[in-house]
Amino acid sequence: MPAEQDALKQVDRNLDASLERLFAFLRIPSISTKSAHTQDCRIAAEWLVTELKSLGFRAATRETPGHPIVVARREGPAAAPHVLFYGHYDVQPVDPLALWEKPPFEPRLATGPDGAKEIRARGAADDKGQVMTFIEACRALIEADGNLPVGVTFVIEGEEESGGMNLLPFLKANAEELKADLALICDTGMLDAKTPAITTMLRGMVGEEVTIIGADRDLHSGMFGNAARNPIQVLCDIISDLRDGTTGRVTLAGFYDGVPDIPDRVREQWRSIGPSDEMGLGSVGLRWPAGEVGYTALEQTWCRPSCEINGISGGYEEDGFKTVLPAKASAKISFRLVGEQDPDAVRRSFREHVRSRLPKDCTAEFTAHGGSRASVVPADMPQLGRALDALTNEWETTATVIGCGGSIPVVGEVKEALGLDTLLIGFGLDDDRIHSPNEKYSLTSFHKGTRSWVRVLKALGR
Amino acid sequence: MPAEQDALKQVDRNLDASLERLFAFLRIPSISTKSAHTQDCRIAAEWLVTELKSLGFRAATRETPGHPIVVARREGPAAAPHVLFYGHYDVQPVDPLALWEKPPFEPRLATGPDGAKEIRARGAADDKGQVMTFIEACRALIEADGNLPVGVTFVIEGEEESGGMNLLPFLKANAEELKADLALICDTGMLDAKTPAITTMLRGMVGEEVTIIGADRDLHSGMFGNAARNPIQVLCDIISDLRDGTTGRVTLAGFYDGVPDIPDRVREQWRSIGPSDEMGLGSVGLRWPAGEVGYTALEQTWCRPSCEINGISGGYEEDGFKTVLPAKASAKISFRLVGEQDPDAVRRSFREHVRSRLPKDCTAEFTAHGGSRASVVPADMPQLGRALDALTNEWETTATVIGCGGSIPVVGEVKEALGLDTLLIGFGLDDDRIHSPNEKYSLTSFHKGTRSWVRVLKALGR
Repeated sequence: MPAEQDALKQVDRNLDASLERLFAFLRIPSISTKSAHTQDCRIAAEWLVTELKSLGFRAATRETPGHPIVVARREGPAAAPHVLFYGHYDVQPVDPLALWEKPPFEPRLATGPDGAKEIRARGAADDKGQVMTFIEACRALIEADGNLPVGVTFVIEGEEESGGMNLLPFLKANAEELKADLALICDTGMLDAKTPAITTMLRGMVGEEVTIIGADRDLHSGMFGNAARNPIQVLCDIISDLRDGTTGRVTLAGFYDGVPDIPDRVREQWRSIGPSDEMGLGSVGLRWPAGEVGYTALEQTWCRPSCEINGISGGYEEDGFKTVLPAKASAKISFRLVGEQDPDAVRRSFREHVRSRLPKDCTAEFTAHGGSRASVVPADMPQLGRALDALTNEWETTATVIGCGGSIPVVGEVKEALGLDTLLIGFGLDDDRIHSPNEKYSLTSFHKGTRSWVRVLKALGR
Repeated sequence: MPAEQDALKQVDRNLDASLERLFAFLRIPSISTKSAHTQDCRIAAEWLVTELKSLGFRAATRETPGHPIVVARREGPAAAPHVLFYGHYDVQPVDPLALWEKPPFEPRLATGPDGAKEIRARGAADDKGQVMTFIEACRALIEADGNLPVGVTFVIEGEEESGGMNLLPFLKANAEELKADLALICDTGMLDAKTPAITTMLRGMVGEEVTIIGADRDLHSGMFGNAARNPIQVLCDIISDLRDGTTGRVTLAGFYDGVPDIPDRVREQWRSIGPSDEMGLGSVGLRWPAGEVGYTALEQTWCRPSCEINGISGGYEEDGFKTVLPAKASAKISFRLVGEQDPDAVRRSFREHVRSRLPKDCTAEFTAHGGSRASVVPADMPQLGRALDALTNEWETTATVIGCGGSIPVVGEVKEALGLDTLLIGFGLDDDRIHSPNEKYSLTSFHKGTRSWVRVLKALGR
């Protein structure tokens, strides 16, 4: 087997050209949740197909009822295992646009407050930059060794940020073609800028949109105020009731069914390795943990379920004042799930919570936006140990296993459709501002992330 | 004195031309609250000046820090009283535009569901159509009699719909020029389509905008959910606490100070003349009164104070889903005041309500949007009786005195700055959809409203 150092040197030599390719990818405004960007999503998918074909992959866009999925395959040595790499080419919306220092789809290198170089653009970290670490690692291995150490199949979708429902049916329908030994995903973070990590605990998610409807038209609040039911007030009452004001616990009936306690041993370990509440929240201008009383911020985001209001809207929202009593008001709400919490049960319980609080004269409409269970990687999985060692070698700091507050529904879907366990290896940092204005990805994450994948793929091929 | 019938016949002869003039006025999109329409407000003011000059008024636009005020004056007979007519040329915003059957600034005549002709456009009823009933009455009187029966000064402003603060200083600064015996306003409604009314009870108003601020940027709800304080949740808790869930009463400290009880005699009278809850709310698709328990919808809007949420906004509000935990959330809230309620005290109490409920890590910012006391016209005012008789003659139904849920702050300002009492005589109907899509003004209101003013002005000149 060729020396690991040859491929690592090739990564270093390629760095400028790798960045050029990433910038080209970042310039495509592939916002999956906005219909105005449907064509941009297709352009992003086709851009990937062209790149992967140039590396000797059999690659194509595959149609779904929504945005296309990119599938690409290249075999490894005869006896080597085959890995399935999942990523997504779609990105989050960019509003509020006014808060971006520079246009979000004009990527650039800049120097961060700590002096480190940063790649700035929407999607730099989530997930285009992370996807490109894997593609550039494949490139360096092929250029240095003439072959990959393992077989690789890419599945890169375009609906991760929009709660799309098309991936699971696609995986099921193409299970034979997508057969592999292990799944790899690069959409998570490190413990901190120096410490690499593999995420083994992932929360599930339920997304719900609810609209409360009162009168059959917008009313004048002077003529009808007090007397006509105000849907904003009704919505606020319902939302306010979602959490117990004293304990911070979510009040939905049965919500905590299937939520495991955190073992004392684990809590102690996390309190020693993890950031304090002050550090974790301090990075975004906060200090005091909200949510459930008795848990640190880290515990709450790694392994407690949550309920967040992601958006609310109703009545007159522009400049100035308008004494309207609106006909409707709506909110987007997400629940993060852990342990054995059942997404369908949580959704039902939320809808019942709303319906049971509707006053006479009001109705509610619901829209589901995705649902997935939490997932946990077995601690004794042999590839986990080898990947941790590979990361430790690259970063010269012991790699650790962590939890993640975000939801990556594909982990459960890959298990369900293809029977595969997933290693979540990513190089994001807490201050990457993913989903926010001025998203960035550390240049070190991009460079050493690519080198990390070279080492991990070599280790998996041994 | 010339016969009343001559001027009434002149109103009838003028009707088509009067409508043409109103349509020209309605075509000007003078939305005062939107800065994009600043120039349109000036165009509307200048349009009025041209019209009033053509009727022999000394007329001019007068500058303020905001939109200009139109002032016009024409003397009456030597011994006759002088009236000050107040109206506003600005209109409400038109969103949601998609709910309009036709463009809001393309006025037209249409037939309503009951077969009655309607003038449809933004501002048709509030207040351009009503202002034009008075101007067209002056025209008919001048054309038929060669003179007005009373002296008339117009003050027509452009900030009524945007909570502007410029009228009161203007009235005070020009008190000598604006001297009169009585103020008249045409910005209210009839009891029903057959029964004319003079509004003698008006609620005051306090408008407040509050923004709750948490983290220093938008966050990913997976990474920070539970642990970081969510400003939408905080805002909903604060709003939910504004009303007692059982009694429907507003919970602000001292809110009901100065609120008079409704005398039993008055409540009985209203229950006999006014629409039932079912009728009043039924017209907008509702049935059950909300608000304070123990009061009818009519009582609540005529003489009880209220608190309404006019708008709420925060996080991701567009199509699809985004798992953001926003940095801020805001609401626009109005309080309607009755009796001796003090607008400044209510505003202070609201801000204290918010501040006392702010969790650690959150701040609140406030913007005031206007404040005015409630006002009541003395029942023994001699001109009130004469005006009621004039309306009774025109509509052949006994005119009545009523209350109004809306706020017309100018009534208090005219009293404060000029020492004048005001007669509120208007021809709007409950289903005029003012402040809503598809606003309309009954053609009968426009025609008989103009005739009514001829009779009222004659009666006041006697």
